[in-house]
Amino acid sequence: MSILVVGSVFFDDIETPHGKAARALGGAATYFAVAASFFAPVQMVAAVGDDFPREEMDFLAQRGVDVSGLQVRSGRTGFWAGRYHEDMNRRDTLDLQLNVFADFRPELSPSHRTAEYVFLANIDPRLQSMVLDQLAAPSLIGCDTMNHWITESRADLEPLLQRVHVLAINDEEARLLSGEQNIVLAARRLLAMGPKRVLIKRGEYGVLQFSPESIFAVPAFPLEQVFDPTGAGDTFGGGFMGQLARSGDTSEAGIRRAIVYGSVMASFVVEDFGLNRLRGLTHAMVDQRYRQFVSLTDIDGA
Amino acid sequence: MSILVVGSVFFDDIETPHGKAARALGGAATYFAVAASFFAPVQMVAAVGDDFPREEMDFLAQRGVDVSGLQVRSGRTGFWAGRYHEDMNRRDTLDLQLNVFADFRPELSPSHRTAEYVFLANIDPRLQSMVLDQLAAPSLIGCDTMNHWITESRADLEPLLQRVHVLAINDEEARLLSGEQNIVLAARRLLAMGPKRVLIKRGEYGVLQFSPESIFAVPAFPLEQVFDPTGAGDTFGGGFMGQLARSGDTSEAGIRRAIVYGSVMASFVVEDFGLNRLRGLTHAMVDQRYRQFVSLTDIDGA
Repeated sequence: MSILVVGSVFFDDIETPHGKAARALGGAATYFAVAASFFAPVQMVAAVGDDFPREEMDFLAQRGVDVSGLQVRSGRTGFWAGRYHEDMNRRDTLDLQLNVFADFRPELSPSHRTAEYVFLANIDPRLQSMVLDQLAAPSLIGCDTMNHWITESRADLEPLLQRVHVLAINDEEARLLSGEQNIVLAARRLLAMGPKRVLIKRGEYGVLQFSPESIFAVPAFPLEQVFDPTGAGDTFGGGFMGQLARSGDTSEAGIRRAIVYGSVMASFVVEDFGLNRLRGLTHAMVDQRYRQFVSLTDIDGA
Repeated sequence: MSILVVGSVFFDDIETPHGKAARALGGAATYFAVAASFFAPVQMVAAVGDDFPREEMDFLAQRGVDVSGLQVRSGRTGFWAGRYHEDMNRRDTLDLQLNVFADFRPELSPSHRTAEYVFLANIDPRLQSMVLDQLAAPSLIGCDTMNHWITESRADLEPLLQRVHVLAINDEEARLLSGEQNIVLAARRLLAMGPKRVLIKRGEYGVLQFSPESIFAVPAFPLEQVFDPTGAGDTFGGGFMGQLARSGDTSEAGIRRAIVYGSVMASFVVEDFGLNRLRGLTHAMVDQRYRQFVSLTDIDGA
């Protein structure tokens, strides 16, 4: 079963305590699509400029990503520059140029409209709603958002939340959106706003999943070096939705395993700049780290 | 098998966003002993003033804590006052009076010297070493410490670490003691300093255990209200050592289960001021929350 993702494609200048990267391929839709492509075919709807390199388009296609929904516009691809602190949970945005992304309007082709697994990466909630309006019969809709939309576009975001199945946001966003400091109360409030499940991404502390019936916690994989945290949350989303699309198992156990696959993919992507680590990744490496996650968390394990 | 704990007994004035408590029974040895008493008999070595209430002595005895090693000195019991921020990971010390604890020297009776399970709660590492010097043949030694000793008494702390089996400290202390920011590298450095296992306590984010062979991660129990975090780490230590003494199982699986029992006890103690929550706690409640931890972390669970 294929997955449709709608979101941003950017180039990123990234500086971390471990080094720098210039014009690394990035954007939420890109990280998501490349991660998901390890599990299922991916359809990607986004906008890039006419500066977008042929080789990156080829890379996406080689990964099984359908780029027919990638609108190539006259102008430059979006650009972000950021610098991480020694404590890499903190970063400063040095530059942000939306470029062709400023006028992005998602338009789905007939083959996109029948998508069953859909992920609305972090963009204006009005655009996210426009995507849903065009879908025939999606079976599972995941959604991300960010501080900017929570504070500036709440009137657009709240009706959207009633239409999505899984909301995946970070802990700071969960607190802001819910108005609750305690993360359990925050999640309960978010569930009451519409989604059936809320995934709270906590960076190096892992992920908490809340449904009305249960809570699931998975740690982040303990890494000796986090090289670049950019895109970790979107990569998590790609692994999560990818595994759901591959397995078709949306039971509690199926969702839990998908959360672990999302965590596996996120643990890889932070090991190098941008999504470089995913370029050489194999399925065997993904499966090996999944088993390491099982061992890491198994109370009765040895 | 009984457990020997050496450490502090204090009274605490505590202020959190949820309220205040005056002269709550506290101190690392107290939290540890009460938590451990749910699993095994506990021998407690500490110093209190002649103001220490009869009813608290009775409470400890009723919990199966051998208080024959509690030195009652002329003067006042140690006192600490602190205020937690809205973000309860942060707190300010408002007052600290060591009182009779200033001259505390651990002296073990013959029945204490044969202890097999020993926990050196956070006190001057010279005193912790004095305890070890008096032991006949301990089979498992756990140890805690804090920032103050790491910076001011490193020359005493380092030889001590070569004599302990399990070091249980928080993430900030692990970074300070190891000089490594990354928590995996920090733990590896700490293992090289002597302990066979390092437990890194991360408050609301749970615990990481490192041995040379493996890593185990357990989340904190997601609570709707954390009322008072005081003593959570010491309570964790009590549940951990208590379960080890009860089961006698120090295999990897046995250690992991003990870490979960420690987390269970810590999750209870923060639900009320001081150690009030433990006063009415039953074994059935402990076992129920253990099962909830299994469900919380089980990747294949439903």
